[in-house]
Amino acid sequence: MKKKIEVCFSPELLDLFDLEGKAVVVVDVLRATSCMVTGLAEGVKAIRPVMQVEECLQLMEKGYLGAGERGGVKIEAFDLGNSPFGYMEERCKGRKIAVTTTNGTLAIEKSRGAKVVLIGAFLNLKAVADFLKHLNLDAVIVCAGWKGRVNLEDSLFAGALAAQLEETFATSCDSVLMAKTLWRNAEGRLENVVGQSAHVERLKNIGIGEDLEFCTAVDRYHGVPVLEGKELVLADVRAGG
Amino acid sequence: MKKKIEVCFSPELLDLFDLEGKAVVVVDVLRATSCMVTGLAEGVKAIRPVMQVEECLQLMEKGYLGAGERGGVKIEAFDLGNSPFGYMEERCKGRKIAVTTTNGTLAIEKSRGAKVVLIGAFLNLKAVADFLKHLNLDAVIVCAGWKGRVNLEDSLFAGALAAQLEETFATSCDSVLMAKTLWRNAEGRLENVVGQSAHVERLKNIGIGEDLEFCTAVDRYHGVPVLEGKELVLADVRAGG
Repeated sequence: MKKKIEVCFSPELLDLFDLEGKAVVVVDVLRATSCMVTGLAEGVKAIRPVMQVEECLQLMEKGYLGAGERGGVKIEAFDLGNSPFGYMEERCKGRKIAVTTTNGTLAIEKSRGAKVVLIGAFLNLKAVADFLKHLNLDAVIVCAGWKGRVNLEDSLFAGALAAQLEETFATSCDSVLMAKTLWRNAEGRLENVVGQSAHVERLKNIGIGEDLEFCTAVDRYHGVPVLEGKELVLADVRAGG
Repeated sequence: MKKKIEVCFSPELLDLFDLEGKAVVVVDVLRATSCMVTGLAEGVKAIRPVMQVEECLQLMEKGYLGAGERGGVKIEAFDLGNSPFGYMEERCKGRKIAVTTTNGTLAIEKSRGAKVVLIGAFLNLKAVADFLKHLNLDAVIVCAGWKGRVNLEDSLFAGALAAQLEETFATSCDSVLMAKTLWRNAEGRLENVVGQSAHVERLKNIGIGEDLEFCTAVDRYHGVPVLEGKELVLADVRAGG
């Protein structure tokens, strides 16, 4: 029998989903999970998502680099903000990074009840799809949204991933249908469509730079971050088989 | 300045929206709000949405007709189930109906903090759009969903309504963009698209009859139900101006 796939459009709706024994893919395209995918692919050793700024500061004393934002703006005491370009810097290679963000880290925290927690972004779309096929577990795509509200870019990713899995997974979840329709409408002009989102409007005011273009590039990386204990590391893709 | 419009995809997300001073449109296409629009247009005097079956039974002792469902199935002691055709019956004319349903009545209950609560369905789409233009208040379209989850048919209605209002209302809500895209993809083949939804799959098992076809007909009625105290009555459309 085919495994099932569902989409959860906001962490605020996650209590309605049974995650036990399932694989969860957390996505926060702008920009937390795009940063995580980029960092680990570019040589970061591990990434530890935490809820509080204070916890990040404590981990920095233990040798972690500190990263994150509130409301899109870098926290002053931290080494990195929430731009994927920061995660590519030479000083990050081989290091562990502690990160807290407005939406992405909360979505990861709320997904811990799942059997496997994966990190997805457009940057590693196909890799996540392939990994899920190998895992052969029921799957829930969890959109980080914006302060509990549904957002466009994470919903589009959910649709793109669900579209890649429609041959191998079954669904009775309307959110999957909706997300796939949105993705098909945006495919091939993703940067343009995401550029109309409320979040990009917000980020424009704080200087999004090249982040939008970078985060809407599809399949730049092959690595899939997976939660092992408290930290995200690159999954051994062959182990998914 | 233009008034603002937002879409709330589930009553579970309603706490994230500030309803004070705003107009709310509650929609539960299959089938609670379609029934309400139909009933009042066909001569029902007033409809009282209540949360509990027990409350409905008490109101029946006071002369109300009792209506409603749990999980799509009519409650045995009630006069009516949740089919719009029941609301058209001769015995309903001039009567008051007390109704409780799985999703629609909860969405209405949670919307009571708004200045004005309207009832929408495809059946009165244009009438609701015109009424909102006359009201000239910020507006939130509240989708009833299914047991807290996002559903397709209510999201499509939200998109259809938002599309009619895009010249006169502004938005910075991604859910509005998403709903409009879904609507544009479904326009002209609504019954077919809604037929793919999870809820229709559920209803097929209990015999949806002609309800799907009826509830996806656009602009059959001109009346807009509005909450006055505890009861829904037809708004005087001219009073909206």
